[in-house]
Amino acid sequence: MLFPDRSTARTADALPSWNDGATKQALVRFVAAVTTEGGPQFVAPPERVAVFDNDGTLWAEQPLYFQLAFALDRIKALAPQHPEWNDKEPFASLLKGDVQGALAGGEPAIFQVVMATHAEVTTEEFEKIVRAWIATAKHPKTGRPYTKMVYQPMLELLAWLRAHGFKTFIVSGGGVEFMRVFSDRIYGVPPEQVIGSTGRMKFELRDGTPVLVKVPEIDFIDDKAGKPVGIQQHIGRRPIAAFGNSDGDLQMLQYTTAGPGARLALIVHHTDAEREWAYDRHSPVGRLDEALNEARAKGWTVVDMKADWKRIFPAD
Amino acid sequence: MLFPDRSTARTADALPSWNDGATKQALVRFVAAVTTEGGPQFVAPPERVAVFDNDGTLWAEQPLYFQLAFALDRIKALAPQHPEWNDKEPFASLLKGDVQGALAGGEPAIFQVVMATHAEVTTEEFEKIVRAWIATAKHPKTGRPYTKMVYQPMLELLAWLRAHGFKTFIVSGGGVEFMRVFSDRIYGVPPEQVIGSTGRMKFELRDGTPVLVKVPEIDFIDDKAGKPVGIQQHIGRRPIAAFGNSDGDLQMLQYTTAGPGARLALIVHHTDAEREWAYDRHSPVGRLDEALNEARAKGWTVVDMKADWKRIFPAD
Repeated sequence: MLFPDRSTARTADALPSWNDGATKQALVRFVAAVTTEGGPQFVAPPERVAVFDNDGTLWAEQPLYFQLAFALDRIKALAPQHPEWNDKEPFASLLKGDVQGALAGGEPAIFQVVMATHAEVTTEEFEKIVRAWIATAKHPKTGRPYTKMVYQPMLELLAWLRAHGFKTFIVSGGGVEFMRVFSDRIYGVPPEQVIGSTGRMKFELRDGTPVLVKVPEIDFIDDKAGKPVGIQQHIGRRPIAAFGNSDGDLQMLQYTTAGPGARLALIVHHTDAEREWAYDRHSPVGRLDEALNEARAKGWTVVDMKADWKRIFPAD
Repeated sequence: MLFPDRSTARTADALPSWNDGATKQALVRFVAAVTTEGGPQFVAPPERVAVFDNDGTLWAEQPLYFQLAFALDRIKALAPQHPEWNDKEPFASLLKGDVQGALAGGEPAIFQVVMATHAEVTTEEFEKIVRAWIATAKHPKTGRPYTKMVYQPMLELLAWLRAHGFKTFIVSGGGVEFMRVFSDRIYGVPPEQVIGSTGRMKFELRDGTPVLVKVPEIDFIDDKAGKPVGIQQHIGRRPIAAFGNSDGDLQMLQYTTAGPGARLALIVHHTDAEREWAYDRHSPVGRLDEALNEARAKGWTVVDMKADWKRIFPAD
């Protein structure tokens, strides 16, 4: 494979928060391979599609998904309009501050919380609500805004791929209307390149003005086997590079690597209890078990956060 | 409004198949307004989203939707594997060449034809099938390939908008997996900017290889009130310009024009029985009735195909 020194230097410089080592080398080698004109693994720019999970891959996800933190704050804000919640789970526990108790109801409880906080508003109203929350809410452990809990090495990676002709997409289990509020500003990924879970919407004329109303029904869950489906529905091309961190990303990584030519599959392994969190096979949030086995069996790139990342967050 | 001569000339030259007149002027005026930096109606490039219906707006749709012609050809190709179709409507009529009789069954009949021809294959197999068909099938009236039945003035418009920083999307009732096969080649619209109706898909591992299988169930109909929903789901921004030709585009035009600032809503009115077809309020294909009333009431731009277009098809 053609691998010019000059290109290596240029690309390596663009990833200052990545320690030198096998992981960074795998990234640089892949990008050199697919962008070297005349090389055996060259990929034309329109086919340079890279997909990124969000929670745990581009920003943190502990102690609980940030969108769930939004939903819990929203429950508190809406409580005065819902006196019935005082006697109704999971709302009653939440309003008493017992998050663990509320979430003990599992998926049905989470579903109720999400529907109560993500529907019965227009898409424009919802955007304003998220915008106001993300501007002021703080992470419970670090006290930083959630938008500062993004991974500096991944921001560099996004920019570096785009500088090499890649189109970067987010493909996440999070709600698409939630992520789009800040994806452009914090990741440089415009709304039309964000794929996520969706609720149903209804077109209505309100006093002659057309609005889209969010209906309390799930339309699509962009997780696990849903991720390749979401990719095909929105992009219509198979990515050549995929980045994830949990079992929810396994099928996206399988789908990406099953195409011909050079492929990159990367898993962010959370191994740094000091600077971030350390978790994998037994974590209720971002469980990484089956996908870690497959990564090892297939030689996918696994980021050891503690060893591979010089910096975790931009402020570090 | 600032309206420099130089820009006018440049833009006017890029639309040679449009006759001079009020329609062309409306197009040029709108693009000048939203691209004039410092002007009161300037729109930043990322917000320059333009959405185009396909059937009847970018290519012809008579005597019946081209995708339906594909489905009918596909029924014939599949018939040997389905002896039961000889006694089952709408297939029996179709196989006898009685298209009108078969379609007399209305939407349920069309649904059966679409499901029998668009499902139970992987997305990759389907793409190959469409690619082979579109390369060889000929339009029954003109004898031309369907990909040559595109409107030359609209091709110029697409390219001209892109040259002015617009991102062009197709938002059509047609199947997304069908249109994406040729949208880039014939319109310069890449697959990730095509929004259409979708069938359900299922992720499967076949002998260890991941595939997406098209399941015979409708997922989403991108028509009428579905169009603004499709736009929000895929793009997440409100377009500033929308182009359609039928009542199926009405809600998309309403949604587009309801935003603030300069907006362009355009309807292609099929008025040329000689060079193309003339139809509107009573046509079963591409009916234009309510949207024509609203266009007149609201001052939307209506293309009079006969008067406004110097050429219809590229070969004219």
